[in-house]
Amino acid sequence: MACNTQTIRHSFISLYNSKCSHVFTKNILTTFPARFSSRSSMKLATSSRSASGISFSSSSFTWNDVVKVSQPDYSPDDSSDLNGYFEKIKICNRGSELQSEFVPFIIQGQVVGYLHNRFAWQLRRYGEVFVYSEDKGCHVTLNSKLKTAEDRTKAVGEVIKCLGEEVIPGIRNELYPVTSSFGAPIFFSLERAAAPYFGIKAYGVHMNGYVEIDGQKFLWIGKRSQVKPTYPGMLDHLVAGGLPHGIACGENLMKECEEEAGIPRSISNGAIPVGAVSYMDIDGYRYKRDVLVCYDLKLPEDFIPENQDGEVESFKLIPITHVANVIRRTEFFKPNCSLVITDFLFRHGYICPESFRYLDLLQSLRRGDCS
Amino acid sequence: MACNTQTIRHSFISLYNSKCSHVFTKNILTTFPARFSSRSSMKLATSSRSASGISFSSSSFTWNDVVKVSQPDYSPDDSSDLNGYFEKIKICNRGSELQSEFVPFIIQGQVVGYLHNRFAWQLRRYGEVFVYSEDKGCHVTLNSKLKTAEDRTKAVGEVIKCLGEEVIPGIRNELYPVTSSFGAPIFFSLERAAAPYFGIKAYGVHMNGYVEIDGQKFLWIGKRSQVKPTYPGMLDHLVAGGLPHGIACGENLMKECEEEAGIPRSISNGAIPVGAVSYMDIDGYRYKRDVLVCYDLKLPEDFIPENQDGEVESFKLIPITHVANVIRRTEFFKPNCSLVITDFLFRHGYICPESFRYLDLLQSLRRGDCS
Repeated sequence: MACNTQTIRHSFISLYNSKCSHVFTKNILTTFPARFSSRSSMKLATSSRSASGISFSSSSFTWNDVVKVSQPDYSPDDSSDLNGYFEKIKICNRGSELQSEFVPFIIQGQVVGYLHNRFAWQLRRYGEVFVYSEDKGCHVTLNSKLKTAEDRTKAVGEVIKCLGEEVIPGIRNELYPVTSSFGAPIFFSLERAAAPYFGIKAYGVHMNGYVEIDGQKFLWIGKRSQVKPTYPGMLDHLVAGGLPHGIACGENLMKECEEEAGIPRSISNGAIPVGAVSYMDIDGYRYKRDVLVCYDLKLPEDFIPENQDGEVESFKLIPITHVANVIRRTEFFKPNCSLVITDFLFRHGYICPESFRYLDLLQSLRRGDCS
Repeated sequence: MACNTQTIRHSFISLYNSKCSHVFTKNILTTFPARFSSRSSMKLATSSRSASGISFSSSSFTWNDVVKVSQPDYSPDDSSDLNGYFEKIKICNRGSELQSEFVPFIIQGQVVGYLHNRFAWQLRRYGEVFVYSEDKGCHVTLNSKLKTAEDRTKAVGEVIKCLGEEVIPGIRNELYPVTSSFGAPIFFSLERAAAPYFGIKAYGVHMNGYVEIDGQKFLWIGKRSQVKPTYPGMLDHLVAGGLPHGIACGENLMKECEEEAGIPRSISNGAIPVGAVSYMDIDGYRYKRDVLVCYDLKLPEDFIPENQDGEVESFKLIPITHVANVIRRTEFFKPNCSLVITDFLFRHGYICPESFRYLDLLQSLRRGDCS
């Protein structure tokens, strides 16, 4: 296919930068009341805008910082005050007012995604693959000559390669299924990094690995490697990962358990699926519509996780009530982990209906299309 | 207040009966494949249309029938086939296509409910209480002379009394709070039986009382008394009840635990809140918008429930997988119990993401406004 890369990339980048208005510029301790400003001198994370998008360029907080801020008496905040949770959920659901800037991506009459109208306009150059139509409202479809999933996967893949890292950063040669809903027939498969640019629903698995000792629950938390391209150094689940094409949820989880935490199948086969959370986040041209299938795994008291793939710096076992404090008080966690852990807190009775806006918070865990 | 009861009641009833089209006429074993029609001769429940609305006039199934149909080998159906759950959820969410027949009920600029347009029209006779307006779209408000919650409660209560049992059946002198959302300030309190006629959100608590023996879970199930005005003889939770005005969720649950199952506070204070389900059901003039706060209580193995208030015939402890079979295969359960138990099945890992339409089913548990 003809590929006039220079012109296209330049126009994409200039448009992208001008639209990119959401950044993590706040000091991540701003959830503390002003009188604790002496603590805010502990500037624990900064953000930067990079070609790869929004990410924390460095997270210099340590486990000591995490433990300190997690203590019940670190702050006089009320654990039944749900505001801190709402703030973290808001971070996962930005830009809803910008939905009108996106046009549907339709295959065989079904909406499978959304493209920013300017990105969609640019894709007209690839007429053998994408068809931009203004018939019955603007939308994008695939060229009808692409008859099979394989044809579509290949053709779209070539466009992604053509656009390159400057337009679609973080290409990792991992394919995500494009469907209308979970478990529905796959129309084609798309490079994972491109998923938000096409607004396709992306599915993942997150696991709450916990231990129960004398009736008290503790959650295993990981600290991401500083060299991860996204959210380096931030806190994360014991095990989590995207759900690529061709592998079932439970099987994918057991694979991630081995790679990320050294959990053998004899233990990970005890993980139970417990539901899902979802969010919809708009940032520039990216429309993330993620659905995370959640699992709980009660681990033996003496189990020690060991990362196998170099993506996790270290793990720590923290009382669940202290983890809740970290979520409410800081932005230490990779944002979507806060949703999954908040769901754990609901299901295990750590958030109570006597708290103001209990039901609102519950609803907000599935603000995206959860299907 | 002037109260021309004869004319109003007649007009209400004739309109109500003509609109009342949803009845439980199906044999409740129709979820079985046709080749099991010999079993369908076991006609276990019939419905009838009565002045009180839709209810089972008699449920002649016994615990033996329940146990028989719950057995794994009773039917060759696949436990990972979620269709049976979808059918039960549909029963709780009828008439969505009829929403356009309802007009909002607005207090202090906030929508607190919905009235069928014909019921709303009839209420114009009570102009000292209700104001029917066509300004900026049809809606109903309360007369602005009613300044306080007490004024409103009293005035609306008198209209309800005036309308009487033939229009608002099942009056039980139990007041429900009318708010815009859970925990928000109360505008007034309304007779519980009238709640669906005003489409107000009604909150309740449902508790999954279960036992765990050697890693297997069992659920305590009750069979409602045959003299209950609604859903007589049907299966129900161990403990459940509406949430009236002036009592917190957890406190209400403990009170119901004592009354309905003889569970002392020393045990019921171990119940944990685990989330909520919701549904929206339209039937004639009734627009039910119910939200059920769900609790799990793990009971001692040797605990035997004893009903104190005469509303439950008897209880039985059934393996949770068998309860799931009853839900999928029959309509033995009071409809909203199926939602709560299905939520339990999700949270405890009995429904898996490998099942077709897993996420759709999860979403459908909160089809109503869950706030």
